[in-house]
Amino acid sequence: MRYLSATDIQTLFPMTAAIEADKEALALYSAQKAKIPLRTNIDIPEYQGQSLYMPGYIQGAQPALGLKIVSVYPNNPQLHLPSVPATMVTLDPQTGQVSALLDGTFLTQLRTGAVQGAATQLLANSHVQKALLIGAGGQAMSQLEAMLTVRSLQEVYIFDRDVDRAYNFCRQASVKFAHQFPTHLIVVDDPNQVVAQVGLITTVTTAKQPTFDGNLVQPGTHINGVGAYTPQMCELPVSVLQRAQSIICDTVDGVLAEAGDIIQPLQAQTLTRQAITGELGQIINQTLPGRQNEKDITVFKTVGTAALDTLVAARIVQQAQKQNVGTIFGENK
Amino acid sequence: MRYLSATDIQTLFPMTAAIEADKEALALYSAQKAKIPLRTNIDIPEYQGQSLYMPGYIQGAQPALGLKIVSVYPNNPQLHLPSVPATMVTLDPQTGQVSALLDGTFLTQLRTGAVQGAATQLLANSHVQKALLIGAGGQAMSQLEAMLTVRSLQEVYIFDRDVDRAYNFCRQASVKFAHQFPTHLIVVDDPNQVVAQVGLITTVTTAKQPTFDGNLVQPGTHINGVGAYTPQMCELPVSVLQRAQSIICDTVDGVLAEAGDIIQPLQAQTLTRQAITGELGQIINQTLPGRQNEKDITVFKTVGTAALDTLVAARIVQQAQKQNVGTIFGENK
Repeated sequence: MRYLSATDIQTLFPMTAAIEADKEALALYSAQKAKIPLRTNIDIPEYQGQSLYMPGYIQGAQPALGLKIVSVYPNNPQLHLPSVPATMVTLDPQTGQVSALLDGTFLTQLRTGAVQGAATQLLANSHVQKALLIGAGGQAMSQLEAMLTVRSLQEVYIFDRDVDRAYNFCRQASVKFAHQFPTHLIVVDDPNQVVAQVGLITTVTTAKQPTFDGNLVQPGTHINGVGAYTPQMCELPVSVLQRAQSIICDTVDGVLAEAGDIIQPLQAQTLTRQAITGELGQIINQTLPGRQNEKDITVFKTVGTAALDTLVAARIVQQAQKQNVGTIFGENK
Repeated sequence: MRYLSATDIQTLFPMTAAIEADKEALALYSAQKAKIPLRTNIDIPEYQGQSLYMPGYIQGAQPALGLKIVSVYPNNPQLHLPSVPATMVTLDPQTGQVSALLDGTFLTQLRTGAVQGAATQLLANSHVQKALLIGAGGQAMSQLEAMLTVRSLQEVYIFDRDVDRAYNFCRQASVKFAHQFPTHLIVVDDPNQVVAQVGLITTVTTAKQPTFDGNLVQPGTHINGVGAYTPQMCELPVSVLQRAQSIICDTVDGVLAEAGDIIQPLQAQTLTRQAITGELGQIINQTLPGRQNEKDITVFKTVGTAALDTLVAARIVQQAQKQNVGTIFGENK
């Protein structure tokens, strides 16, 4: 067996590879080739924790089998530990043997950035030059990297309610991407200052109210809703959902079950089920058209799926086996 | 994180420790302190395989959290691999972090031997001198070890339908236990030759018919039914279930759902639900009496539960941390 740390995964699997793996996962998911059983949740009331088990199997020419274990422990930071520790286990679908363990926190960041990268690549206007990133938390760096990877951006505006966090993030990102992307990163006090100037918006927060004014969004803009992963959360303004020509999901079932962004306006009848156009995998499979007109407003909503974790992890492990990266342990070598 | 091989586990955790850990697990299970979600099964039809995920959480003074991953791949032996590869993952219930991976095949053998050892310790007559082991397959060695550990046996008779397998097993066991136990191990051609001479019978097969004649069983005998883990399988003769003063389960829910031994006579109405006395954990918790009379026939039926895997693994990992045994990998040290 093999252990792959965040550093190992970074060495093996750049954002471009993660975007391709996410596209493969969503294409197979939309073609009914993914078996994703219901998540198992165990409450650990003694420590105010919860432990979640998310297995998945993706059929195809190179099948992928795995399980992500995610725990939610809000008190962990008091112990200087992550509040959402995660570990990915991959199995060899041909033999059922455990093949590897991966840093699940980094895997989640990578596949979540990459899924937005896939949507931006397929849906944003190719000539877009300015973007807005709302939310500078733990998922922000891979979100920014994904936008920079798929579009040649001159400027990305960065907003966070916590202005110090926005400046810290901007400094770190400027250093990290200095030699890779020529983009200016600019902190803004108010996202609505710049909404009308950008052609690409990614929001990645746990907000319960829309994070920007939908009426300011210009025709041709592509919007990614990456946060808001519970029915109580909401980042996307209804006005922009109503104006959008396409609302594309990573998985329609997941979005309708978990995304407050979509569930709340459906319940309030300010949005119809017919407004949900379909899945990104269908666009990849060419069973659904993507952007039809450069003036269209397009929206992508993702809540994640074990199909992404399972397939991205399997492709990382294949690379690790080829390049002999990682820590080998146990008998299955 | 830490990896513990079969050898590591053997070094750390003798059968006596495993029996105590199994007793702790069953006591907590019967006291409603175990949360065992439904098993998740994923079929892998491309390779005629199945992948099973069995999480568990045991509350108590020293809580235990974990997941056993078991795959069933009947074609694996063609690849010189085990047909049922298994890996145990333990988590720290206080932080939700993965703490260790263990060889799940060895863990299963150990906890399955130990649960019979616990039942034999609590239910067999203390003066029993002769025993019969039916089935010399992959689980037989730990079954024999458990019987030898909890009773001072002069002779153990060994039967297997495959007489070569019986002799091979007998040779291996004689070498393995030569310095530990003075017991004579004797292969028999027919278990019914010796049923009337023994006070302890353990059957561990995948038979679909009873493996011995229940009418030959003498008063005072304790019988362990360890194989027969599906509704189609059956090892225990109805006649002995009808004659038994106690029928004790590892978990009543598990036995009623999975054990053909019990399900078939209940359906045929040759046994009543009232004949099922209760759980071994209740005897440990002293909420149910054990053997009442040295002439009683007692029966223990086990199909296993994730509670055993989870608690035994947690105790092994505690020992490994204390004694610094195993292979350390990754960041959580």
